[in-house]
Amino acid sequence: MPSRPEADDPRLGDLSEGRILHAILSRTARATHTILGPGDDAAVIAAPSGSVVATTDTLVHGPDFRLAWTSGYDLGWKAAAVNLADIAAMGALPTALLVALAIPRDLRLSFVERLADGFRDACAALAPGCAVVGGDLTTSDVLTVAVTALGDLEGREAVTRSGARPGDTVAVAGELGHAAHGLAVLFDRFREGGSPVPVDPARLASGESAALDAQLRPSPPIGLGRIAAIAGATSMMDVSDGLALDAGRLASASGVTIALSRAALGDDPNRALVGGEDHALLATFPDGVLPPGFRIIGEVRPRGADGILCDEEPVDILGWDPYRDWDSVSG
Amino acid sequence: MPSRPEADDPRLGDLSEGRILHAILSRTARATHTILGPGDDAAVIAAPSGSVVATTDTLVHGPDFRLAWTSGYDLGWKAAAVNLADIAAMGALPTALLVALAIPRDLRLSFVERLADGFRDACAALAPGCAVVGGDLTTSDVLTVAVTALGDLEGREAVTRSGARPGDTVAVAGELGHAAHGLAVLFDRFREGGSPVPVDPARLASGESAALDAQLRPSPPIGLGRIAAIAGATSMMDVSDGLALDAGRLASASGVTIALSRAALGDDPNRALVGGEDHALLATFPDGVLPPGFRIIGEVRPRGADGILCDEEPVDILGWDPYRDWDSVSG
Repeated sequence: MPSRPEADDPRLGDLSEGRILHAILSRTARATHTILGPGDDAAVIAAPSGSVVATTDTLVHGPDFRLAWTSGYDLGWKAAAVNLADIAAMGALPTALLVALAIPRDLRLSFVERLADGFRDACAALAPGCAVVGGDLTTSDVLTVAVTALGDLEGREAVTRSGARPGDTVAVAGELGHAAHGLAVLFDRFREGGSPVPVDPARLASGESAALDAQLRPSPPIGLGRIAAIAGATSMMDVSDGLALDAGRLASASGVTIALSRAALGDDPNRALVGGEDHALLATFPDGVLPPGFRIIGEVRPRGADGILCDEEPVDILGWDPYRDWDSVSG
Repeated sequence: MPSRPEADDPRLGDLSEGRILHAILSRTARATHTILGPGDDAAVIAAPSGSVVATTDTLVHGPDFRLAWTSGYDLGWKAAAVNLADIAAMGALPTALLVALAIPRDLRLSFVERLADGFRDACAALAPGCAVVGGDLTTSDVLTVAVTALGDLEGREAVTRSGARPGDTVAVAGELGHAAHGLAVLFDRFREGGSPVPVDPARLASGESAALDAQLRPSPPIGLGRIAAIAGATSMMDVSDGLALDAGRLASASGVTIALSRAALGDDPNRALVGGEDHALLATFPDGVLPPGFRIIGEVRPRGADGILCDEEPVDILGWDPYRDWDSVSG
């Protein structure tokens, strides 16, 4: 992307809050469910089924992304995608996003414009009809993007983590381990002296470009959440911390054991089990039910000594915990 | 408050995300409108009137608060209060909060526990029935509290900024200028070498303790938002950036001029006009209508050359803009 002259691309610290908000809101599409959009004390969003599904997730520079690796566009896209995935995992239709930005004052206006483009395009691609309906802007030394996503259940019950029953099929939609593969490529090959450096596409091997996309600009199967709910999913969740950890949570919430088949976990089963941030949808279905887009990876059994088995062996792998695992790489 | 032994009060960096979340959620009251509370991918909140009011506002260490002046309890209280005020300003009943925390790893568990207490108590005092229904926890070098508040209109139309009509009465509920007074006390007297130092109550003059409370633990008149709507308010907003700036926004949105009476603005009219963060409710009512808790401060006129007049003179005072006004005081 050609950079624009600095005179046309002021520092945020030299602009008023109103000017920055205008740049963001002029890039915001109108959401189908918006009754009152940005510009007042709060937005009003339709909740036709009499309830609203709500979730919040934050991306912080450092533990969650590095500007050397992530563009404003990718950051906006990812912040939208990870929140939309939590709405999808309840079986709901995403209706609206609220975006709270805390931004260093030395960043340029073009960064915020591209961030807004990323939000808009992720909604259009992953959850048509959903858009940013409100937000907040403040300054911080650490770039922080806190997003709240809202959704509508269209009259259905929410699909929680606690409804899996022995005999159900365990299935997944979306990728497992690709985002972790992308993160490994970044950590292994695009750091100098411990600090992140920009990705040189010429240094990427086959398949690594897709892995980087999965990490930096993920496309979880948002629309399949409500499809799964309509098909009769008994439980569902978003795989954000790795299949082993998240399936273990679902098994605990449901009081069952989940028995996975290693052969169903792709080329790199260990990475699929441990790798986080794919935001695939993990669901259980009554035997014989499998909506398009889902693939079977195991079965639900009565609760045994272990919550998770893989090829009948206990799985002793933990996923990602930001309070334990962040290695404080700067940049 | 007696500090507890460090062995009982671990650093957040030494705890799992699950342990910290447990400490928060065990302090969270159940909200009246909660259909599904914390613990799944998303919460589900009742929206009985078929729409949901939603707003988000973030407090960042530095521009928005300083730990030397603000306890965890006060921070949680204020983060709740400022978001509840935006829901009230639409004429809605607050139903739920979602809280995204980004916390330095060297803070202690007791800080987060008190933060959760502050959220709980602010909801109980200002918006009974509302509570924290979900959230997110991550780590950051800059303590950041991003809150989303949801509300229900109970079948009414939202009260926006754009409905004021010539002939309406201009009224306010809550304090004007007290929070700014409190901030001035902090900046003037509780800094050493430019850095904030803890407040010594013995050094506070008469009235300053109340001003500090208005700044650090505000109690905006949340319940009066729906009272104003039921009474027939034609427009309403939350005064967060100073009366002059916010009334100017309301006047512009409505295409009117607001003529204020200086004598109605209390002991320090200039501070009332410019001081931010009080989160009073500014509303317009048809002539002859004034619900309890509101006091008249002016009248609505056809749009003239100036959006705001005070005793017939233009008001040339700006409010608070974090991108312009933050002086980067550390601490």
